Amino acid sequence: MSVTVAAKDVKELRERTGAGMMDCKGALQETDGDMDRAIELLRVKGQAKAAKRGERAASEGLVHSYVHHNGRVGALVEVDCETDFVARNDDFADFAREVASHVAAASPLYVSEEDVPEDVREGEMRVFAEQAGEEGKPEQVQQKIAEGRMRKWLEENVLLNQPHVNSDKHDGRTIEEMRAALSAGTGENVVVRRFARFQIGD
Amino acid sequence: MSVTVAAKDVKELRERTGAGMMDCKGALQETDGDMDRAIELLRVKGQAKAAKRGERAASEGLVHSYVHHNGRVGALVEVDCETDFVARNDDFADFAREVASHVAAASPLYVSEEDVPEDVREGEMRVFAEQAGEEGKPEQVQQKIAEGRMRKWLEENVLLNQPHVNSDKHDGRTIEEMRAALSAGTGENVVVRRFARFQIGD
Repeated sequence: MSVTVAAKDVKELRERTGAGMMDCKGALQETDGDMDRAIELLRVKGQAKAAKRGERAASEGLVHSYVHHNGRVGALVEVDCETDFVARNDDFADFAREVASHVAAASPLYVSEEDVPEDVREGEMRVFAEQAGEEGKPEQVQQKIAEGRMRKWLEENVLLNQPHVNSDKHDGRTIEEMRAALSAGTGENVVVRRFARFQIGD
Repeated sequence: MSVTVAAKDVKELRERTGAGMMDCKGALQETDGDMDRAIELLRVKGQAKAAKRGERAASEGLVHSYVHHNGRVGALVEVDCETDFVARNDDFADFAREVASHVAAASPLYVSEEDVPEDVREGEMRVFAEQAGEEGKPEQVQQKIAEGRMRKWLEENVLLNQPHVNSDKHDGRTIEEMRAALSAGTGENVVVRRFARFQIGD
């Protein structure tokens, strides 16, 4: 079935390149599903994008885990940087640790907004528009209301948008703000690559 | 696109029920994609299956992590049992710990054979059959050879089939054999529910 193959290919391409869901889907469409050519295409585009932002490839890093003392919830994160030197830096390890404990507590669904699959986004928008309709909002503002709620949903469910759960310690900064500060401090591109979160009874 | 929705629905249904990939796909097909009815259907079937095997629902458990000392590879696992009492048992915690370190070292792809998606299985079979052909094996035995190599692939890539990497300590037993022993020892249904494995540079 070409249906399932496509979803699997997108998944494989994401795992092999670390690129976002939409980029991978686009690359596979552009190359008629040819995995090797799609990887090439993403490399070229990725390099172009990184060059534009003055970024370099983040291929070193740290895996960090956090399990709550009751053993009922845990998280695993990968944070990448450019050199082994920075990966062994204490601030870098602290950031990885803080992201892991945050993920366990805050249950984000995606790392970044570009990781939110298009169909999930469309599904949420549909629900928000319907809700606005049921609440009796005039038709001409329903779309605007739905967009506002979508923005809120993205703030709440995307890891980089979330303020760290320990807001006292981190002055209410978001994970993205903490990442950007670390990137500035180390002079390297720092990327929260991926996370997993398991909870008993999920 | 109904394509992507279906893959996402299967994923959601798996996450919500813990049922196998094929069971979820089947349930969604049977209910025309109705998530709530599919969950109901899986519950009924799951209870029927558990009753047949004399099993009870595993809804307690432990999340355990392992990160290699160099911070470049880590694993997160969830192991479930029936009661909080067993979840706090030392043997149960040891098993969860041993599975986490094993996953980090042995890089399994799936928990159980029923988690291997049909299209992955078909893809591997195709490759094995083509290989047999290129090796000049007679056509009438190519299928048999491919089946043998598929069996080997499943032994190597499915967590429950893998002998624990520390074979001295565990007498060469597979994760499934260790799980079955723990289940017998505790008198409860023990389930390796899921795992994640991150490695820098993957």
